[in-house]
Amino acid sequence: MTEFGFIESIREAFAALPDNGFEGIGDDCAVLPVGGGESLVFTADMLAEGVHFLRAATSPAELGRKSLAVNLSDVAAMGARPVATLLSLSLPADATDAWATEFMRGYRELSEQYGVTLAGGDTTRSASLIAINVTAIGRAPSAHLKRRGDARPGDAIFAAGELGGSGAGLRDMLAGRCDTPSAALHRNPVPQVAEGIWLGERPEVHAMMDLSDGLASDLGHILDRSGVGAELDLDRIPVAPGADLRTAACAGEDYKLLLTAAAELADRLSADFRARFGTPLYPVGRIVPAPGLVWLRDGRPVPLDWHGFTHY
Amino acid sequence: MTEFGFIESIREAFAALPDNGFEGIGDDCAVLPVGGGESLVFTADMLAEGVHFLRAATSPAELGRKSLAVNLSDVAAMGARPVATLLSLSLPADATDAWATEFMRGYRELSEQYGVTLAGGDTTRSASLIAINVTAIGRAPSAHLKRRGDARPGDAIFAAGELGGSGAGLRDMLAGRCDTPSAALHRNPVPQVAEGIWLGERPEVHAMMDLSDGLASDLGHILDRSGVGAELDLDRIPVAPGADLRTAACAGEDYKLLLTAAAELADRLSADFRARFGTPLYPVGRIVPAPGLVWLRDGRPVPLDWHGFTHY
Repeated sequence: MTEFGFIESIREAFAALPDNGFEGIGDDCAVLPVGGGESLVFTADMLAEGVHFLRAATSPAELGRKSLAVNLSDVAAMGARPVATLLSLSLPADATDAWATEFMRGYRELSEQYGVTLAGGDTTRSASLIAINVTAIGRAPSAHLKRRGDARPGDAIFAAGELGGSGAGLRDMLAGRCDTPSAALHRNPVPQVAEGIWLGERPEVHAMMDLSDGLASDLGHILDRSGVGAELDLDRIPVAPGADLRTAACAGEDYKLLLTAAAELADRLSADFRARFGTPLYPVGRIVPAPGLVWLRDGRPVPLDWHGFTHY
Repeated sequence: MTEFGFIESIREAFAALPDNGFEGIGDDCAVLPVGGGESLVFTADMLAEGVHFLRAATSPAELGRKSLAVNLSDVAAMGARPVATLLSLSLPADATDAWATEFMRGYRELSEQYGVTLAGGDTTRSASLIAINVTAIGRAPSAHLKRRGDARPGDAIFAAGELGGSGAGLRDMLAGRCDTPSAALHRNPVPQVAEGIWLGERPEVHAMMDLSDGLASDLGHILDRSGVGAELDLDRIPVAPGADLRTAACAGEDYKLLLTAAAELADRLSADFRARFGTPLYPVGRIVPAPGLVWLRDGRPVPLDWHGFTHY
């Protein structure tokens, strides 16, 4: 069973239970309206040693920052402001006091940078490897929330940053080159928190998510939930320094925002984004009515069997 | 560094950050008032294979139920109703599809029993052992919330059930006897959800928490946060079948509620509880002004060096 297959089976099994006001599984975050036109959003991520990180290749402070960053990215992808986290740490005897203290220093550094409180969590022993779970809570006016299922035919598709840098960094690290700029980027992803909140305020932005599994895979979630298809222009995908096109299209962990926006307002949105953040929104394609993902080169379909990163 | 020492160091390190409306670390749950006189509460627990459970001694369905139960217990200990959870699972290759499916069956069974929705989570591979994190969300009128810091001198101290059954079960299992009633209780704790909500509605209940680390240890948290002390009557501690007095006083994982209540209203509270639930509130002692925990036998102090269970 794949990760997505398992999640789908869970979603079906729990569909009959009362929702208690929560919007169900399937977006970057769960949503709970709390009155006053506001909603809270919730997301959780588990990082396992030997799967998501190698202790020898990542400093504990970097890992503390990254554990938080990936969750802040999910909150921002809803158009919400992260307000709090709960942190669970399972630590083996060989992750010493010094390791835990350094991890918390990194976690605190990013918490402070984004004004996020640590509301609770759990610390426990592990029999061997480190496991980390972060649950992040965000808050937003309900009208600002962006979901995966709201893409419309004709929408422009944007990536809010260059892609493939993290994947190139992972490639470097696996080859023993841990000191390249790409490797540093892989270990220190920057969540687009201010960007996500800003895009949440723009009604012409329809669907949004963050790129954690790669453009080819993640865009599929928007297409599935919106009941639409897409064309992606290979020559317009923004390739990060150190990466190649395929890495930019398929590798994971870039944590850049992926969004769709009304085509007639897309130029204005893009100009305003650049004025606000000094960086462009990269137009990478458009939403079409017919299901499926079509890769175009020079405007002509190219048969490519490109898929995203699979965690499971 | 002990678990509590590490948590204290984290609390200090994060104290200077904005609280974003959250009540900080130190209770069974974090609290966020959301308007309309209501609050949400949040708690997280991590279970690590080889530390909290042995795969050979616990069925996956039991573990699914227990992972949820211990979190529902924390929510109930605040006087709140559990409404949703986020579940993170890190599964090694040898925890097969069948194992995961059975785990989810148990998790769903208890979710349905308590009307709790599964709002999200994460599933990922593990390099070796299973790790499970559950974040539970509860809801309550803010006036019903019970905290550890509200015990007052003169309060009666109650346990809402017999103690030591889980500890006796763990002892049985470690001796290879997995089929005793105590062992079944250890693997299938019953969270006192209805009891916690009911006690939350009683203003004469002052402080409340759930007993996860043992009476001797957990009562210490109420004493510390309330700035008071306590006398415990050894001859009134309710010892579960299969357990002895020391196990009842010191062993963990009973998940019974521990509460303090205004002395003059305690008899009435106890009678109403029995009328509602068919089981008594067990009076085990009283809160006193002077700090420290004093064990009494026949009303006379006994020097005992009894402590609770330490996870870390």
